Amino acid sequence: MTTNDSGTIPDAEPLGAATDLATALRELIELSVVTTVGAGEVRAAADLVRAASERLAVARRPIEQLPALGGRAFDPVGGQASALAPPLVLRREEGGVVGEATLGVAYEGPPTYVHGGMSALLMDSVLANAAAAAGVWGMTAHLELDYRGPLPIGRPLVFRGRVAESGGRKSRMVGTIALASAPDEALVEASGLFIMPRQEKADVYFGGIADASGEHQPQSRAGDATAVAED
Amino acid sequence: MTTNDSGTIPDAEPLGAATDLATALRELIELSVVTTVGAGEVRAAADLVRAASERLAVARRPIEQLPALGGRAFDPVGGQASALAPPLVLRREEGGVVGEATLGVAYEGPPTYVHGGMSALLMDSVLANAAAAAGVWGMTAHLELDYRGPLPIGRPLVFRGRVAESGGRKSRMVGTIALASAPDEALVEASGLFIMPRQEKADVYFGGIADASGEHQPQSRAGDATAVAED
Repeated sequence: MTTNDSGTIPDAEPLGAATDLATALRELIELSVVTTVGAGEVRAAADLVRAASERLAVARRPIEQLPALGGRAFDPVGGQASALAPPLVLRREEGGVVGEATLGVAYEGPPTYVHGGMSALLMDSVLANAAAAAGVWGMTAHLELDYRGPLPIGRPLVFRGRVAESGGRKSRMVGTIALASAPDEALVEASGLFIMPRQEKADVYFGGIADASGEHQPQSRAGDATAVAED
Repeated sequence: MTTNDSGTIPDAEPLGAATDLATALRELIELSVVTTVGAGEVRAAADLVRAASERLAVARRPIEQLPALGGRAFDPVGGQASALAPPLVLRREEGGVVGEATLGVAYEGPPTYVHGGMSALLMDSVLANAAAAAGVWGMTAHLELDYRGPLPIGRPLVFRGRVAESGGRKSRMVGTIALASAPDEALVEASGLFIMPRQEKADVYFGGIADASGEHQPQSRAGDATAVAED
């Protein structure tokens, strides 16, 4: 279960509605890339999208106000209510986290393969979530990826992350992406250094944050990763 | 002007319609994250999105068939017809490429800051485009990022990339992200190694690709980056 920043479970219906919209958007994004219908139909689809925007535009929160659902629901990687999020759900395994995802044509770089930058985006999230699952936390200070082979679009991939070394405010994380059918042959290897900001720096970074009611809410663990499914 | 993989300018109306839809989708994605309307309105927006999907779902290309518009229009970073693409348009400058973008709340990691993985996604694309602009090309073999400070949501950022070293099939690229108001203070530093696959490997990777008419079309420069605006 995903909890919000104050540790409570958010109201199920707003989360359900936001997840429904994100799921519908992900499908439309994929279709927008693979459709071969004529330009008139594409324009008609755009009109429907603008009609949807009109409904949502009537009330919005300012940047510095946290969403009522809790920040991680909208995380652009793995957030169930984010339309951008590649559909990757992580779970705990011995020594780290693991998750499977099949990426659509919307995530394509070279023809029929996942964009190299998408692997970096996904692994930053996998490593951060593995850190959080291990009880360490930090912001990305260094990220490094070796690409051994391209990741095919439309085939199940497996993502793994674990702590390599941890001490004080620093954690070095490592992880891989492989075909689910050959999980031990890493096609992408990633490592990252995550550092928990000192309190005085966290105050500078997050001192202006307000919760959904508009109350000031200093962030102690602003990057809290709750995208890891509980057992 | 963006050209398709055969070097011709794609039919303006399909590109215009696809760009219109992507632009509308980007706005709706941002609103889906910042809206504070009730769950009923969010569900109604999702219904409109599904109605749009129904229009596009009636005809679609298979994964291995290139889009009629040319692959780069749908690139998930910088593609004008990709709803996922952060709105970053690059142009040539002395020694490399440069572009500005302001990222919305949809791209947020820690509260009020850009997701660290998004910086990696964007810089992979900036470095690849800088390579293409310099006439070298390759697939990402290694990508490395140092994060000096967080990138604020909603403030103009400037992205730069250039060739550091190039020879044979390999190019080492470097680049930065900074506030547009302080372009010389890099908040993110990136470097990448891009390698052009040997012909026999390219044949394996891209041998099954067909063009939009369904004809077999072997890819010589599959990652051709045409997201750099011509002067």
